[in-house]
Amino acid sequence: MNLGERLLKGDRRACARLITMLENNDDQAINILKDLYKHSGNAYVIGITGAPGSGKSTLTDKIAKEFRKKGKKVGILAIDPTSPFTGGAILGDRIRMNDLTLDKNVFIRSMGTRGSLGGMSRATWGAVKVLDIFGMDYIFIETVGVGQSEVDIVKIADTVLMVMVPNLGDDIQAIKAGIMEIADVFAINKSDLDGADRTKLEIEMNLDLSDQKEYRPPVVKVSARQSENIGELVDKLMEHRKYLEDTGKIVERRKKNIRLEIMKLAEEEFMRLIMNKALGENLLEDLVNNVVLKEMDPYTAKDRLIELIKE
Amino acid sequence: MNLGERLLKGDRRACARLITMLENNDDQAINILKDLYKHSGNAYVIGITGAPGSGKSTLTDKIAKEFRKKGKKVGILAIDPTSPFTGGAILGDRIRMNDLTLDKNVFIRSMGTRGSLGGMSRATWGAVKVLDIFGMDYIFIETVGVGQSEVDIVKIADTVLMVMVPNLGDDIQAIKAGIMEIADVFAINKSDLDGADRTKLEIEMNLDLSDQKEYRPPVVKVSARQSENIGELVDKLMEHRKYLEDTGKIVERRKKNIRLEIMKLAEEEFMRLIMNKALGENLLEDLVNNVVLKEMDPYTAKDRLIELIKE
Repeated sequence: MNLGERLLKGDRRACARLITMLENNDDQAINILKDLYKHSGNAYVIGITGAPGSGKSTLTDKIAKEFRKKGKKVGILAIDPTSPFTGGAILGDRIRMNDLTLDKNVFIRSMGTRGSLGGMSRATWGAVKVLDIFGMDYIFIETVGVGQSEVDIVKIADTVLMVMVPNLGDDIQAIKAGIMEIADVFAINKSDLDGADRTKLEIEMNLDLSDQKEYRPPVVKVSARQSENIGELVDKLMEHRKYLEDTGKIVERRKKNIRLEIMKLAEEEFMRLIMNKALGENLLEDLVNNVVLKEMDPYTAKDRLIELIKE
Repeated sequence: MNLGERLLKGDRRACARLITMLENNDDQAINILKDLYKHSGNAYVIGITGAPGSGKSTLTDKIAKEFRKKGKKVGILAIDPTSPFTGGAILGDRIRMNDLTLDKNVFIRSMGTRGSLGGMSRATWGAVKVLDIFGMDYIFIETVGVGQSEVDIVKIADTVLMVMVPNLGDDIQAIKAGIMEIADVFAINKSDLDGADRTKLEIEMNLDLSDQKEYRPPVVKVSARQSENIGELVDKLMEHRKYLEDTGKIVERRKKNIRLEIMKLAEEEFMRLIMNKALGENLLEDLVNNVVLKEMDPYTAKDRLIELIKE
């Protein structure tokens, strides 16, 4: 039986193997996903993002447990921002030492990518498909909410949970502000700390200003470490799902996500094409040398590269 | 006199106008930079990055003042991470209320971009050229050190200063670890806080592990707010410049930077091409619909888009 068939039958090792292949940019994994794509679409994808230090991992684990109580199969993808220089995952492969890892209806994976351009999105989105075909009911993508590519990764979720925390510095709050628009549900974690009510108020005020009319993202105070209010948070996640499904907006949303994915896949492929061609023919080095010598400007050099791809 | 000629003559308003045009993706500004590119290359570019809340802005101002004391003309580009959803700059146009703004040999500019794909890099790199041609001796690019695109922006500097701060959370330190490799000089700001020596030790230990042999990035404890040790920090920045120039490595470095710039410009242009073509012919929507209906997988849809560009 080949890897794809094994995945369809719910073979755990095939699932792990395929995700590793995706991390390594192995095109064979993509070919398998092409064949199996029609079997995907059953899982519901929840993106979990927030500032560094907001306790996303602990909260994700607690939410996953709530879904397990409901009898749902759960996949967790924890995305490590990859160092663009060493190619290694920054946070390392965090092993979650808890009872979730022993549950065979849970699949947890830390993912880093090997420093390829755009590779993190491609690998993550591929891994979501793998877990979907593998038979998970809910898939959580957990990622640090900073930077365009991290935001892109989580944007393809059906529901996005934004984890806030009281009393972070102004600068950090400002960064979060930039991705507030993608949140469908807000959790204020560590809400036993002073300032939780103020943070809730600030978010609510921001929401008052927004022009989303039909659906207003709820703001839930929780404490992941003390397992407080996790049930209520999960209810809110489910309510968002119900809203999307009842209004038919789920189709609109998935279209938007697929559009983004296709565009990003094309972007990455293009960069690979250009690298292969330009490096193969030594053209890139010639262009760089011309620009260094001021015989050409970088904009004209860029035009030459584009022409090369069109040939 | 046209804008380009005015810029060459050191006209401040032409300089400001061109940067605004770059922010707005106005191709006329690019055409002017193409013509004037041969007049660039005199400025030395210093990238300043670090975790949110590390006090980069204050430190940048203090460093700029040191260079002013040496009689150098100074440009400062403070990059605001842009919200990809509203298109607005997250931090707002921070106005620096200090004596630097009154100094006609200083040009300070907060930059955001209008939500275009890859637009932030293009606008920033263009603005560096504008300030260079305008006649600045030193140009500082200040940006939050999180996320791939932010790292890209600062990578094109001749010297990169990484601003650390004692006692940030582990998660934040980890993110910083991912961009430690690009630092040529480390500053530990707020070094009157407990833990500054420990942070210095941690950085030094990290540097011990690195395989950079010839040049070892120095680690300088400073306090931007109290103007402590800024002179020493500037000396270290100058020593790195001297090292690059004495060894001839400056050429290598600028080649690397130009290579990155050309690639990124090509990437952005490609995305624009694809958007225009695919949207114009309604192809993207057809592909998205096919994928939603599982009649096509996203990888095949991506291949179709690539073919379109090659036509």
